[in-house]
Amino acid sequence: MQIALLGGTGDIGEGLALRLARDTDHTVWIGSRDPEKASRSLEEYERRLPAGVGDQLEAGGNEAAAAGADVVVLSVPAYYLADTIESVAGELEDTILVSPAVGMKRTDGGFRYNPPGVGSVTKLAAQNAPGNVPVVGAFHNLPATRLADLDAELGLDVPLVADDTDAKATVSALVEEIDGLRPLDAGSLEHASEVEALTPLLVTLAHHNDGLHDLGVTFH
Amino acid sequence: MQIALLGGTGDIGEGLALRLARDTDHTVWIGSRDPEKASRSLEEYERRLPAGVGDQLEAGGNEAAAAGADVVVLSVPAYYLADTIESVAGELEDTILVSPAVGMKRTDGGFRYNPPGVGSVTKLAAQNAPGNVPVVGAFHNLPATRLADLDAELGLDVPLVADDTDAKATVSALVEEIDGLRPLDAGSLEHASEVEALTPLLVTLAHHNDGLHDLGVTFH
Repeated sequence: MQIALLGGTGDIGEGLALRLARDTDHTVWIGSRDPEKASRSLEEYERRLPAGVGDQLEAGGNEAAAAGADVVVLSVPAYYLADTIESVAGELEDTILVSPAVGMKRTDGGFRYNPPGVGSVTKLAAQNAPGNVPVVGAFHNLPATRLADLDAELGLDVPLVADDTDAKATVSALVEEIDGLRPLDAGSLEHASEVEALTPLLVTLAHHNDGLHDLGVTFH
Repeated sequence: MQIALLGGTGDIGEGLALRLARDTDHTVWIGSRDPEKASRSLEEYERRLPAGVGDQLEAGGNEAAAAGADVVVLSVPAYYLADTIESVAGELEDTILVSPAVGMKRTDGGFRYNPPGVGSVTKLAAQNAPGNVPVVGAFHNLPATRLADLDAELGLDVPLVADDTDAKATVSALVEEIDGLRPLDAGSLEHASEVEALTPLLVTLAHHNDGLHDLGVTFH
């Protein structure tokens, strides 16, 4: 499979690039609005990966990264989401869009969930996607720094929301390939807000509790 | 300490009564609108507890249960919350109110979070509490059936929200006394909605994933 990580130079994109390269055989494109930046990230990721791993990494502008991709991950801040989808809309054919972004606002004592008017960022992605392109919400609740630390064992759950069950199954199988992540079906896109609201809770808990930081979640 | 579980005959109240009786030395009042029902639950709980345990359980109407209590847990459905607080308001003196209720609505594929206009059920409890009575949100995310099964090991987290830090510390210490529960500070009452929204996600995940049921959560 060919996977494009738009905004693959930072936040959740960095960890996904590293772990997809290490744990799977898929071709992984690191995309950025700035192709030079994508290339620099590629070089850095290759240095951080175990010897002999990372050959399947590619880098380019977001459009080049999305071209021919089976799965495009929108690992960009929520406020860039619509523009990012628009910038690659011409390249999306038999493509699944994956939306990990969450809208949050800072408060005195942590973060609050701050969804867009449509109800969730994942639904906003679906609203901005070309008509036949399915959107899967995933990776909302992963700790970016730990994800990007290849020595860190995760043991974390990844709730998935989508209206297209085939697309959800494809992304679920992809999540399963990453060591230490368990995909869980969290229902239709309508349920995205509950999944997204968990992310500011994770940040707030890390803020208030000694010894907890960069949190993920396990359901059991 | 004296703890009153209003609505202590069902849902989360049942498990809290059993585990507080088994794991702590506090006096635990099982309260119900119907005192007869409370007495029947008391007898049943005493039968289910290990031999020699359960002497500190008492039963009565909600008002009798709340009288003199240091902590009053409102383990009633969200739509009974305001009425329940009003029915015991005259008994609340140096009392901490604990609110575990969540507003949810059923959908085709699970449950959605359905907060009241004030933003969360926990804030609704605070709005209905007498002026000087602190409200702590807790126990929102616990699986009721597992909690009431004394053979089940929990290993679960309990996020706590409150504006009154002393009250939060008191409830946190109480949570810590129950085997297998870890209290976590989730900030002020403003953050209650993110904690409450996790509950419909737990129900939805159990609905969609084989082998998962009666879920709680661990943050790590």
